[in-house]
Amino acid sequence: MVKKDYTEVINKIDMVAGKVYNDFIKTEIPSLQLPTRTKANIKFDEKLNVWKYGSNTTERTAKSLDGAYMLLRTMYMADFIKEMIKIKKSSTLREMYYISEGWDMAKFHSQNESNLLAEDLEVITSCMREDFKLRPEEDGARVMGNLTIEEMTRNNTKKKIHCQDDVGDAGYSIPYNVEPEKITFKNCDADFVVAIETGGMFDRLVENGFDQSSRAVLVHLKGQPARSTRRFIQRLSSEKKLPVLVFTDCDPWSYRIYASVAYGAIKTAHISEYLATPSAQYLGVTPSDIENYELPTDTLTKEDINALKSELTDPRFQDSFWKGEIKLQLKIGKKSEQQALAKYGLDYVTDTYLPEKLTEMGLLKK
Amino acid sequence: MVKKDYTEVINKIDMVAGKVYNDFIKTEIPSLQLPTRTKANIKFDEKLNVWKYGSNTTERTAKSLDGAYMLLRTMYMADFIKEMIKIKKSSTLREMYYISEGWDMAKFHSQNESNLLAEDLEVITSCMREDFKLRPEEDGARVMGNLTIEEMTRNNTKKKIHCQDDVGDAGYSIPYNVEPEKITFKNCDADFVVAIETGGMFDRLVENGFDQSSRAVLVHLKGQPARSTRRFIQRLSSEKKLPVLVFTDCDPWSYRIYASVAYGAIKTAHISEYLATPSAQYLGVTPSDIENYELPTDTLTKEDINALKSELTDPRFQDSFWKGEIKLQLKIGKKSEQQALAKYGLDYVTDTYLPEKLTEMGLLKK
Repeated sequence: MVKKDYTEVINKIDMVAGKVYNDFIKTEIPSLQLPTRTKANIKFDEKLNVWKYGSNTTERTAKSLDGAYMLLRTMYMADFIKEMIKIKKSSTLREMYYISEGWDMAKFHSQNESNLLAEDLEVITSCMREDFKLRPEEDGARVMGNLTIEEMTRNNTKKKIHCQDDVGDAGYSIPYNVEPEKITFKNCDADFVVAIETGGMFDRLVENGFDQSSRAVLVHLKGQPARSTRRFIQRLSSEKKLPVLVFTDCDPWSYRIYASVAYGAIKTAHISEYLATPSAQYLGVTPSDIENYELPTDTLTKEDINALKSELTDPRFQDSFWKGEIKLQLKIGKKSEQQALAKYGLDYVTDTYLPEKLTEMGLLKK
Repeated sequence: MVKKDYTEVINKIDMVAGKVYNDFIKTEIPSLQLPTRTKANIKFDEKLNVWKYGSNTTERTAKSLDGAYMLLRTMYMADFIKEMIKIKKSSTLREMYYISEGWDMAKFHSQNESNLLAEDLEVITSCMREDFKLRPEEDGARVMGNLTIEEMTRNNTKKKIHCQDDVGDAGYSIPYNVEPEKITFKNCDADFVVAIETGGMFDRLVENGFDQSSRAVLVHLKGQPARSTRRFIQRLSSEKKLPVLVFTDCDPWSYRIYASVAYGAIKTAHISEYLATPSAQYLGVTPSDIENYELPTDTLTKEDINALKSELTDPRFQDSFWKGEIKLQLKIGKKSEQQALAKYGLDYVTDTYLPEKLTEMGLLKK
C-alpha cells in the first residue's frame, strides 16, 4: 500500500532487517518469505478485475551462498532506502545498481538483479517502489485539460499548475512520482479522461482544442504507459470520479496498452489496485471502426495474428465486445492507426469520430 | 531559412507551383531542380563546421510516369501546406500521409515517400518543415533553468513560462515547433547550457538543484535528440550567447549524439546552420574519465569497436581531443555510462565531477 508518511515505510523496512537480525539472535539460518512471483502464482481476480498473486510463497534463505548474498544485498538496499528518505533524495534504479559498487560483496552483477530485488522488497513490505524513493529512468508523459495539480517541488514548496493555463502547448509533464505526497489533484472541471497512445494524436486533440470544447482531460500514454502514467490515471479516475477512455491504434499491441491501463500488468500484480483502472473503457480504434469509417489499413502480420489469437484466450479479453472485435479483425485481416482518421481531414477526429463514439458510449449528450 | 512571416513561405511554395505551371504554358515537360541528396553530394564544411550539400543537382521531371506522379504529389502537398497556414493548423508527417488518401492518383504509397517529399520541398524552397506546419510524431524533451520562455499558444495568446518557477519538477516540455513565431527567449540568467543524454541524469541534476547552484540551463536530449531539441539548443546558444556542454554516456553512440548537436546530421544538411551548434563542447563522460574516476565499465562490443573505428575517419572527430580519446577507448576496451558516477554516491556528479570538469574547461571559477 502507498504510505503517505515515510515513518511507516521505515518501520516496514526495519521489520525486514529485524526479522533477519532475530534469526541470527536465535541462531537460526536467516530467511525471508515472499509470494512466489512466477506466472503460475498470478491469477486474474475476476472480482477486482486485476491481476493478483496467489497463495504460494518462496523462501529466501542464507542456506545457500546465493541466498546469503541476496539477504546481504537486501540489508544494504534497506539501508540505502532509509538514507534517501532521511536526506530527501530519490534515485533511479540504474543509480542504485551503481551505488552497489560500494557494497563490497553485496554488489549487484546486473541491473536485472537490482530491479528484481526492488520488486521483492515491494512484495515483502507491501510498499511501493515510490515509497522507497526509487524511480525509473524517465517518463515524461503529458497532460492537458481543465485540471489543477498541486506539486510538492524539490524546494519543498507547493506549486499549483493548471494543465491548460499554466503550461505550454506541450502540456504538463507527469513527474516520475505521482503519489499523494508529491502531487494532489485540486480543481478539475471535466467530464472524462481520454488516454491517448500516440504523441501525434495527443497533439492533434490539443491543437484542435478538444480538451476545451469537450471538457476532456487528455493524457498521453506514450505507447505502453509508464507506471507513473498508469498511477496518474488511476488516481484521477478514482479521486475525481471521471470515466477513462483509452484511444489507441487498432492492433493487438494497442489492445495490450488498453489492458495494462484497465487491468494492470503481470509484473506489477502485487500493486494492481494502485495502478489499474478497471472502469477504463476502450474507445477505439476498433476493427468495427475500420469497416464503419472505411479507414486506411495495413495487412495483419503473422505476429499480429498470433497476438490476436493469444488475446482470445487472455482472461482480460473475455467479454463479448472484445471477443467480437478480435474475431472480426482476424476475419478482415487488417489493422489501422489512430492517425488514419486524417484521411478525412485534420478536424475529422474531433468533429466527427470522437463525438460519434462518445455518444455511442453515452458520454456525450446529443 | 526560417521565415517569421508565412507570406514568404506561401510565396516560395507558389513559386514552385508557378514553375510547373509555366512549363505547361510553354508546352515544356514540367520539371523541378534540387540539390542531389545522396551521401556523395554532402560535404563537411570545415569553415562552418556543419554538413552542407555540394553543387550536384537532380531533376524531377514528368518525362517518366514516376516523375509525373511526384510532381502531382508536390502540387497537392503545396496546396495542403497553404491550407494549413490559412487555417492555422499543423499536421504530423503521419497525418499528411493519410491525408493523401484524398489525393486520388497522387496518394502516397508509404510514409517514406511522404517524408522524402517533405524534405525535397524544404530543399527546393529553402524553407524548413516547421514553416510548412509539418511536425514529427512527438518530442517531449524537457528544460529546467533560470530561463523565461514566451510561448505563443494554440489560443493565440502569449504565455510567459519560467523554466524553474512555473513548472513542476519534470521541467518545461519543449514543443514540436520552437521557431521564433512560436517561442521566444526572454530573461535568461545562466552561465551555460548542459545538454544531457539520459532522463535519469537530467532528473538527478534537477533533484540536486544543479541548475540553481551552478547557474545552468539543463536540457534533456532524450537519446538522439529530436530536431526541435537541437534547434532549441542552437537558438538558446546563439541568442543568449551561452556555451553549450554535452553530457552523455561514454560510448561511440553517445559521441554521435554530441556530433548531431554540434555539427548537424547528414539528413538535415540543408538546414545545418539552423540546427547545429558548432561551439558545443563535449563535457563527458570521456574515456579519460573512466580511468581518472575509476568508473564501473562494460566491455566494448564488436559493434562498439567498429563504430569507434569509423569515427576515427569521420570529419567531425578529427581534432586531437577526439582522436586521443577514441584511441584511448579502443586501447582500454571499455565503455561507461553517465549514471556510473553514482558509484560514489548520488551527489558525486554535482558536488565533484561536474565542478571539476567545468573548472578544467574554464567555465567555473575556482
